[in-house]
Amino acid sequence: MPPTITSSLAHDYNAHCRPQVQDDDENDAYVHRITRYSDGTVKLRNSNIELMDQDILYHLALGSESHDLPEMFGDVKFVCMGGTPKRMENFADFIMEEIGYKLPAGTQLQDISAYSYRYSMYKVGPVLCVSHGMGTPSVSILMHEMIKLMYHAKCVDPVFIRIGTCGGVGIEGGTVIITEDALDGQLRNSHEFTILGETVHRPAKLDKKLARELKSLASSDDPYDTIIGKTLCTNDFYEGQGRLDGAFCEFSESDKMAYLEKLRDHGVVNIEMESTIFAALTHHAGIKAAVVCVALLNRLNGDQVNAPKEVMHEWQQRPQILVSRYIRKVLQQLGPLKSLFGHQGSIKSPRRFKLVQQESQAHD
Amino acid sequence: MPPTITSSLAHDYNAHCRPQVQDDDENDAYVHRITRYSDGTVKLRNSNIELMDQDILYHLALGSESHDLPEMFGDVKFVCMGGTPKRMENFADFIMEEIGYKLPAGTQLQDISAYSYRYSMYKVGPVLCVSHGMGTPSVSILMHEMIKLMYHAKCVDPVFIRIGTCGGVGIEGGTVIITEDALDGQLRNSHEFTILGETVHRPAKLDKKLARELKSLASSDDPYDTIIGKTLCTNDFYEGQGRLDGAFCEFSESDKMAYLEKLRDHGVVNIEMESTIFAALTHHAGIKAAVVCVALLNRLNGDQVNAPKEVMHEWQQRPQILVSRYIRKVLQQLGPLKSLFGHQGSIKSPRRFKLVQQESQAHD
Repeated sequence: MPPTITSSLAHDYNAHCRPQVQDDDENDAYVHRITRYSDGTVKLRNSNIELMDQDILYHLALGSESHDLPEMFGDVKFVCMGGTPKRMENFADFIMEEIGYKLPAGTQLQDISAYSYRYSMYKVGPVLCVSHGMGTPSVSILMHEMIKLMYHAKCVDPVFIRIGTCGGVGIEGGTVIITEDALDGQLRNSHEFTILGETVHRPAKLDKKLARELKSLASSDDPYDTIIGKTLCTNDFYEGQGRLDGAFCEFSESDKMAYLEKLRDHGVVNIEMESTIFAALTHHAGIKAAVVCVALLNRLNGDQVNAPKEVMHEWQQRPQILVSRYIRKVLQQLGPLKSLFGHQGSIKSPRRFKLVQQESQAHD
Repeated sequence: MPPTITSSLAHDYNAHCRPQVQDDDENDAYVHRITRYSDGTVKLRNSNIELMDQDILYHLALGSESHDLPEMFGDVKFVCMGGTPKRMENFADFIMEEIGYKLPAGTQLQDISAYSYRYSMYKVGPVLCVSHGMGTPSVSILMHEMIKLMYHAKCVDPVFIRIGTCGGVGIEGGTVIITEDALDGQLRNSHEFTILGETVHRPAKLDKKLARELKSLASSDDPYDTIIGKTLCTNDFYEGQGRLDGAFCEFSESDKMAYLEKLRDHGVVNIEMESTIFAALTHHAGIKAAVVCVALLNRLNGDQVNAPKEVMHEWQQRPQILVSRYIRKVLQQLGPLKSLFGHQGSIKSPRRFKLVQQESQAHD
């Protein structure tokens, strides 16, 4: 049991974020051991949950005793996340077509988390499509509840993929960028947590093999580049990303350019607002994860997005197309989809179901 | 010009957050001078904006040249914000009734920012009701664009109020809490920004006079307490607030209790996820602001919310009732509302209007 993983509140940044390769492998094996049961289903790193009478996933409007979560979600293999409910609804429609998933006659997709008024969730067979809002705290809440959902539903080795948009750094608009390492504002490959008042860093590591596999699915026929590089994650869109057009701006254009070029020299190819927490929490949970974004502009050329609507719309489909190729490839390896029927009766307890709806609506 | 305000990137925490009273007053006068024109309309601390051909408020789906912002928003006196679109829609309906605002026959409230797919915005005469999502980065983006909106619309001395829910610390569920000081995870009365890679602290100061005025509007007939106290702002709902029921938990119940009691000893009465950024950005913009939340539970007694639906629903109206009393009082002092008509023709340029819709839809 490597001490750098098990120590709880006294995590040391350097021990965590710059380990030797051997430690990395050891840690990965250790994390896998404590985050999987022998049948491959997700095991939680929190023994409190199994002792609870019920676990309410407040922000998803689901509960472990109100809903039959293994029945509803046990077949999930891929959890795809993105900023807005609209984008994830579009992705659900797109992936349904791509994997040839058919809804029963007279049915339509429904927002599973509608009663939470926070996140939207659509399920297309083995693919769960969830909106995560903007910024790391919003993603943090969702990740805790999605990881617990994987546990309750007894999902086997799920893969989490964030599909987003970003600003390119020296990279032209329309380029698809797969994140190699997620960096925080201080260019550390970790996410900083405050737990019981103490600062804790957890490595913001994504699955390098998955990143390479996604990259290999870019086609030479694609009329755009697909690259792998470092991603800067910020806590703000304006000052935090060196934009000149926020409500405040206390730096000059040349300060901004010097900063963006410093980023580029450091290997940063894009900037967004969610990657470190997404990487840190999936890694901590032993879940294979990737971040795939399309650049809407090259920040070295300006702050404003100027591409016409049709172009922008087509750009935003590009990460979805890449992720769809990956999902289809994995599904082909797994064989035909299980029967899509028999998903009736997902409410285990009508009384508790009502309670979960109430509590979910109340939480901020 | 006090140097602690004007220095840009080298802000020193102690200089900022523990100034002498005299410095406070001087600073406030200075901030007022640079954030107001002589007629009381909002002035920006960013000279880049007036030099721009147009300013697109991406995440609000509004633009300075596409929309006639003074015509649409020039009469706004109060900007009320809360987490979810649903709550702010409810508040819009409530405040409409409370201030006796009448919509023209055959019209209904419309979500002004629907095309952004991020925030929702409803306008009820002088009251703007906006959802801000969860966590400080989401609030940060909104605040930049709301402050710029106040500037473009030439609003006079607008007041910003956040209406939310929170966990109480030694405070029973149903209590209304007005924030005196917003504290970050390290109990500092400031918000930490990363700008061009450098750490900057800005004081998370709310308007103490406004807080006292709100408190004075609590009625002795109210069947609940309304108090003023310190608010802890966290970046996470689970580990960040010492909850035992997240996907991870690396501390014991007694660690948690010791932490919550430490908070209480420090004067913290509630915990939420937005107050520091809300306070820091309004203060920096010279905008009078307050945070009013209702406690959903006393965290010293547990992590779960157990009140029945009807009780919870009534609790969430309490901050709305207090804020409504304040708004009605101020409006009475101002005299009758201006004519509600003549708000046609808010689109200045159909071509630019279309462009703003497109760009807004694309941004993450």
